[in-house]
Amino acid sequence: MAKGAVTQAAGFLAAGIACGLKRSGKRDLALIHCPGGATAAAMFTTNKIVSAAVDVARRHARNARIYAVVINSGNANACTGQKGIKDAIAMCQTTAKHVGAEPHHVLVASTGIIGHPLPIAKVKAGIASAAAALASSTAAGQDFARAIMTTDTRCKEAVGAVRISGKDVTIGGTAKGAGMIGPNMATTISVITTDAAISKSMLQKAMAAAVGSSLNKLTVDGHQSTNDTAVVLASGAAGNPPITRPDARYRAFAAALMGVCEDLTRQMALDAEGATRMFKVIVAGAATQAEAAKAARAVADYDLVKCAVHGGDPNWGRIICAVGSCGVRLDEKKLACKIGDIGVFAKGRPIKFDAAKVSDVIRKEYHTITIQLGAGNHTDFCYGCDLSRGYVTINADYHT
Amino acid sequence: MAKGAVTQAAGFLAAGIACGLKRSGKRDLALIHCPGGATAAAMFTTNKIVSAAVDVARRHARNARIYAVVINSGNANACTGQKGIKDAIAMCQTTAKHVGAEPHHVLVASTGIIGHPLPIAKVKAGIASAAAALASSTAAGQDFARAIMTTDTRCKEAVGAVRISGKDVTIGGTAKGAGMIGPNMATTISVITTDAAISKSMLQKAMAAAVGSSLNKLTVDGHQSTNDTAVVLASGAAGNPPITRPDARYRAFAAALMGVCEDLTRQMALDAEGATRMFKVIVAGAATQAEAAKAARAVADYDLVKCAVHGGDPNWGRIICAVGSCGVRLDEKKLACKIGDIGVFAKGRPIKFDAAKVSDVIRKEYHTITIQLGAGNHTDFCYGCDLSRGYVTINADYHT
Repeated sequence: MAKGAVTQAAGFLAAGIACGLKRSGKRDLALIHCPGGATAAAMFTTNKIVSAAVDVARRHARNARIYAVVINSGNANACTGQKGIKDAIAMCQTTAKHVGAEPHHVLVASTGIIGHPLPIAKVKAGIASAAAALASSTAAGQDFARAIMTTDTRCKEAVGAVRISGKDVTIGGTAKGAGMIGPNMATTISVITTDAAISKSMLQKAMAAAVGSSLNKLTVDGHQSTNDTAVVLASGAAGNPPITRPDARYRAFAAALMGVCEDLTRQMALDAEGATRMFKVIVAGAATQAEAAKAARAVADYDLVKCAVHGGDPNWGRIICAVGSCGVRLDEKKLACKIGDIGVFAKGRPIKFDAAKVSDVIRKEYHTITIQLGAGNHTDFCYGCDLSRGYVTINADYHT
Repeated sequence: MAKGAVTQAAGFLAAGIACGLKRSGKRDLALIHCPGGATAAAMFTTNKIVSAAVDVARRHARNARIYAVVINSGNANACTGQKGIKDAIAMCQTTAKHVGAEPHHVLVASTGIIGHPLPIAKVKAGIASAAAALASSTAAGQDFARAIMTTDTRCKEAVGAVRISGKDVTIGGTAKGAGMIGPNMATTISVITTDAAISKSMLQKAMAAAVGSSLNKLTVDGHQSTNDTAVVLASGAAGNPPITRPDARYRAFAAALMGVCEDLTRQMALDAEGATRMFKVIVAGAATQAEAAKAARAVADYDLVKCAVHGGDPNWGRIICAVGSCGVRLDEKKLACKIGDIGVFAKGRPIKFDAAKVSDVIRKEYHTITIQLGAGNHTDFCYGCDLSRGYVTINADYHT
């Protein structure tokens, strides 16, 4: 894992400090600053109930230049009414004042418990401390990554590099998220920085594609939070002629960005609440793309499949059951399933297989489940992780 | 709990014996016989992949008279191809031979592991033993109830009584099911007997209504099995003039049948894999009936809500999150939530409440969660249960 990822690209300063939101006293206020201003692209939760921070950030993200992103953990500032909106705006104002920018050029995100008013005085003091601590060092980048964590047991950081028009471009990102993760949204809170010069529309396009194939394909418990936010900031400090069209340079950048997002997604799956391993469900032969995605998600979300993965059990019956009940078209006579490279079901019938060998595949940190529906030629996938007693412990014993 | 429920109504003999399908040596072959023939109504899983038993029983259930129902546990006879169909038919043939009926007047059901061929010789011998043990005693009814169990830790049995045209009518039922329970299907395996005289169409109507408001409203893990079957047999032995129209007599019978199904549903929820308590989610103010049902199910299926219930935590934030992300229309300004009778959220804002009091409500065996969407005037509900470490233990450590 790359350390201090968000300060690897040129043009960014970061900080992460403790301002007293987390009872543990751990870091809970993260600030990133791009003194030269950055082009930004952002994606947000599709939950109908959203954090005040999402409400404010969604508007600010439309602006051409973004100078800072401020994030607090320990409190979601969701279901907090007008005070919540005021507080989210105050976070932008305080940040703007300290970094010398306009409030609407600041993005804000919050993560933590829902329905508690933000202790805004603490947050404002925290922003002042964070602004004073801003640095481009690896340590500062790591502090930032730590300060956005909630139930995560470790930081998620990833860095990618790509040559564009003879210039070295760096992309670095961090993400937080361990539970309440479902696809079809900009999952969790992710912040990516790059020194690429790229237009807002191309950055948005690259980010949508990267998130669509990575963060949006991970389901831990099928849950969308009120606060999910993914942001990419491009400082342009690498000095490449700006990417403004979907050409080869764009594709090189987009591929590198996707690599970073995929790396973060993998790290999130493996640090999911209670998770000990992850898997990728690939559904082929679907009648439509949407049905392929639906079936893949149905399998990855199926608690009985997740439990079987946890137990290392090649219980293909549960996979077939999930596929059969999710409402997608299939041809039972062509239905097939592989765990890793080993066929366990084909032409609608079980295949004899070496259960110990398949168990070994499942017990690895990462394996694939491939399903052929026999109803068309569309393919899609989803990442999932196992369901353990640890998930229950974390979520039953956690108290509001 | 009523013991030996399926032999309480006049006209039925039952048996439950062990034929060697369960490694534990427990009872795994259940037989019910109605010497005078019964009117039958049945509902089956809507999973696209179904057990051979479902395939066969679906056809046989169309017949006017049913003389027997044979059920094995320990093996689902699902994903077993042509041999599976042959075996399911053989179960009907063997039963028919022993009770003196036609094979197509016998219903068959199987429950247990998917994808293993049925050891049909054992099953045939078991049917012979069961036929020899048939009795109308309470003990025989209990044996039947035990023989359909899989991961259930206890029998589920319920009895209802109703006067119809001056005759005492009895309705008795048993159900098995502990996991892989989702709504929108005839959940699990349920067998109900009654001595009412009632036409097939009225019996089907009453059964559909009863299952629709009980078994179909329970979600343990949102999963539909390949084998779910619910059957009601009416012997007519009570001697009432047959119910043939949706009149007051029909309504009295239907209400009693629903009572039995609701009782069985409650017992299933409380014996769900790892469950320690259950809850009812009532969604009001939905734009359509379907959206009310969808939102209720989304909350009942939400792992984070289930964990909070397990922990006795009044975490209304997770409830609101589930509602917000399930895709139904809502008016955030009117959104409200009660746990038991205590308001925790109203007009889109948290309400101050006594957390200890709400915890006490949640820690009861049964509580309600009521949600107002503010988007219309449709209401629906769903039953759920808590998610515990026990669920994971049962489903991760269970090996194929």
